[in-house]
Amino acid sequence: MPFKDYLYKYLYQITNGNATKEPEELCCYAYDATGRTFMPDAVVFPGSTSEVSEILKLASLEKIPVIPRGSGSGMTGGSLAVHGGIVMVMSRMNRILEIDCDNFIARVEPGVVTGDFHRAVEQKGLFYPPDPASSAFCTLGGNLGECAGGPKAVKYGVTRDYVLGLEAVIPSGAIIKTGVRTAKGVAGYDLTRLIVGSEGTLAVVTQATLKLLPLPESVKTMAVLFPTIHQAAKTVSEIIKESVVPRCVEFLDKSSIDCVREQIGFNLPGDIQAILIIEVDGSLQTAQQDAAKVEKFCIDKGATDVIIASDSKQSAELWSARKALSTSLFKLAPDKINEDIVVPLNQIPEMVHRIENIKKRTGLTIVSFGHAGDGNIHCNIMYHKKNPRERMLAESAMDELFDHTLELGGTITGEHGVGITKMKYLPKEIGESEMEIMRGIKKVFDPDNILNPGKIFI
Amino acid sequence: MPFKDYLYKYLYQITNGNATKEPEELCCYAYDATGRTFMPDAVVFPGSTSEVSEILKLASLEKIPVIPRGSGSGMTGGSLAVHGGIVMVMSRMNRILEIDCDNFIARVEPGVVTGDFHRAVEQKGLFYPPDPASSAFCTLGGNLGECAGGPKAVKYGVTRDYVLGLEAVIPSGAIIKTGVRTAKGVAGYDLTRLIVGSEGTLAVVTQATLKLLPLPESVKTMAVLFPTIHQAAKTVSEIIKESVVPRCVEFLDKSSIDCVREQIGFNLPGDIQAILIIEVDGSLQTAQQDAAKVEKFCIDKGATDVIIASDSKQSAELWSARKALSTSLFKLAPDKINEDIVVPLNQIPEMVHRIENIKKRTGLTIVSFGHAGDGNIHCNIMYHKKNPRERMLAESAMDELFDHTLELGGTITGEHGVGITKMKYLPKEIGESEMEIMRGIKKVFDPDNILNPGKIFI
Repeated sequence: MPFKDYLYKYLYQITNGNATKEPEELCCYAYDATGRTFMPDAVVFPGSTSEVSEILKLASLEKIPVIPRGSGSGMTGGSLAVHGGIVMVMSRMNRILEIDCDNFIARVEPGVVTGDFHRAVEQKGLFYPPDPASSAFCTLGGNLGECAGGPKAVKYGVTRDYVLGLEAVIPSGAIIKTGVRTAKGVAGYDLTRLIVGSEGTLAVVTQATLKLLPLPESVKTMAVLFPTIHQAAKTVSEIIKESVVPRCVEFLDKSSIDCVREQIGFNLPGDIQAILIIEVDGSLQTAQQDAAKVEKFCIDKGATDVIIASDSKQSAELWSARKALSTSLFKLAPDKINEDIVVPLNQIPEMVHRIENIKKRTGLTIVSFGHAGDGNIHCNIMYHKKNPRERMLAESAMDELFDHTLELGGTITGEHGVGITKMKYLPKEIGESEMEIMRGIKKVFDPDNILNPGKIFI
Repeated sequence: MPFKDYLYKYLYQITNGNATKEPEELCCYAYDATGRTFMPDAVVFPGSTSEVSEILKLASLEKIPVIPRGSGSGMTGGSLAVHGGIVMVMSRMNRILEIDCDNFIARVEPGVVTGDFHRAVEQKGLFYPPDPASSAFCTLGGNLGECAGGPKAVKYGVTRDYVLGLEAVIPSGAIIKTGVRTAKGVAGYDLTRLIVGSEGTLAVVTQATLKLLPLPESVKTMAVLFPTIHQAAKTVSEIIKESVVPRCVEFLDKSSIDCVREQIGFNLPGDIQAILIIEVDGSLQTAQQDAAKVEKFCIDKGATDVIIASDSKQSAELWSARKALSTSLFKLAPDKINEDIVVPLNQIPEMVHRIENIKKRTGLTIVSFGHAGDGNIHCNIMYHKKNPRERMLAESAMDELFDHTLELGGTITGEHGVGITKMKYLPKEIGESEMEIMRGIKKVFDPDNILNPGKIFI
């Protein structure tokens, strides 16, 4: 259905001119980190909750898709206009409305960049743990949509654990408020956590009340070098049981190391097959003690070296190398399939072994890194999309990867969501009765299927 | 509608004789901690998930209410058969199926007594923080239904934060599996946390996968004595900001102290107006350091004494006094209205002040204690139900209490749920659009409204 001119006029009016239908502008909002593109019919930039409400009312009336969008850094196509329609970019609603140091909460709009929020709360001695690798540009709204995690989830959990309440607009245009501004609350069904992780298919979040923690006094960052990938995997699987609960345990395999070798900030011996980046935190004394425990434990497990970052500069370099990984991979091949599988901790060595076998079978470069401390491995299958053989191999590798993951008791997505890229795999993990309930819930919020249609469910 | 004989025969068959319709047995399952009673038509004790499924299929076909029930220790009437029907007691499904020390998870049936579960995981060096005062007899199934909290929520969160996945049966009889067995997971909508806290109105949980933590090496328990209630309240509201994150901060006002004075295990000066029970945990050294910080902070805030429990026996006595409080209150009056309001931390002093005013206005004994560290105050209005004037006063006190709570940015229930007792107050906190969504969700799971009808929603 062609997009009607009067609709665009309404959008333009509602947002006081913050709308566009120029192709050269539309294409800026047609992509995400999957590398796939779908042109929307129009893009709007609402400036307030009531504008979001007006846009959704109009879209409901006209049965036009609305796709909420943060920075477009999603990994599974969640913000792509797969059926055209209106992309609703939340970048103008980017205010931190409140940081309440007495009650350890913040109130934010969805367009706030996650990294900016980190800095703002840290300046006040507070701490917001969810920290996706894209934190320099992704937004809190996107994080809420996908239930983003990041490295600190090992100790501190994921986005859903930090959302106390939401203001959101449902497709009818009704503005709802969910949850509480307090530490506890159980009045009625948990709509807050239902909307978090729903990938923009149930409601457009216009405000979130987030829980904060006191900023830990001290953090120790360590790079632990291993001569074999299996020693690293075994260390990850046993560290919490036999040593301490670190706040991060990041895993980098050999190919990952090679991609960011120059950014790491210290010299690496050539024969290193895996690195763990481990962080502990707490009071100055606790962090020191725990770092010493971790060091001893890793050496016992066969690490050849444990380099404790001497200062925050060295620690920052290590993290910036880690965070650059996802984009650095394109050095290896022009295309990648990026999966964020999770397996139970004690299955990490077996999973790493099986990934090695998939590599051997397909001959493809598969790069594994990620939040191993909670079993969440980002597995990147590198290939040339235009080469049909490689494409077929890559797809078969992905199938096999998911089958192994589920066989080992894992999940196909730890933090990236289903979007469009994992849609066809979701029924492998979720049964028909459960899918039926999810479709029913979708219908309660969005009877006309206008909000981010074509996602999650086949 | 009278309960038909053939229905009872089916129930008897399905459960191999684990059903009853004898009035003297029915009345054992007619009450809960509200003191209200509703006679069910039959009681069944399913022994397996498939029996639960068969019972629900039958009930759906015949449109008969089914009320899942743990130990009946709920505070808001969640397990009462308000419309008659079948009470489904989960006590036979009481196995701890698995405690997995490698992956920090346990798999349990709903009838496991919470305190038994605590002991079982602690024997393996693991830790399950949710800990309602009724832990000696309440069940994990009930805790899931209400999203129970308890004292350790200050640092460790509530039941929902420890549920990774569920097996549950929906009213149609379909057995569903939600969530994951891993630390992270975002595949599809979060049905797990939707069912947790839904007060048995969406599905009957038949198995839960729970997240565990390593057992902290050391715990220090302190009783902090205050000459005025306001100094205690101010200490609570500032402790996290200015000192450490304790794992518990329990508050006992003067009337509470008087109720359990003899059980407390050490001598209390007569002029004490409030006690805080504060616990810190961590490594031996951390716990010691933090206890010292807390002691100094409390003395600075005007505490007259800080008694650090010398051993686990003294600590256990203190907790058993605290846990006995709820039932000890009947020394003061034959009836109580027990509310578990939550306010933002920095509003605790104001809330305490307003409760004092309600006391003065009504002349009723109102006892406040509870999990002040997360703003969750159990406020008990003591009265004689048979005295019409006291009854009216008690109800007006409750109205006023909720109004103040909401005015201060709080919620009417932190962990007890809505059930029947707070049903009429829920619309004060939750708007009509949100209620409409909740009713829609209820309908998706339970189109015929057979599962625990007459709860939450007016």
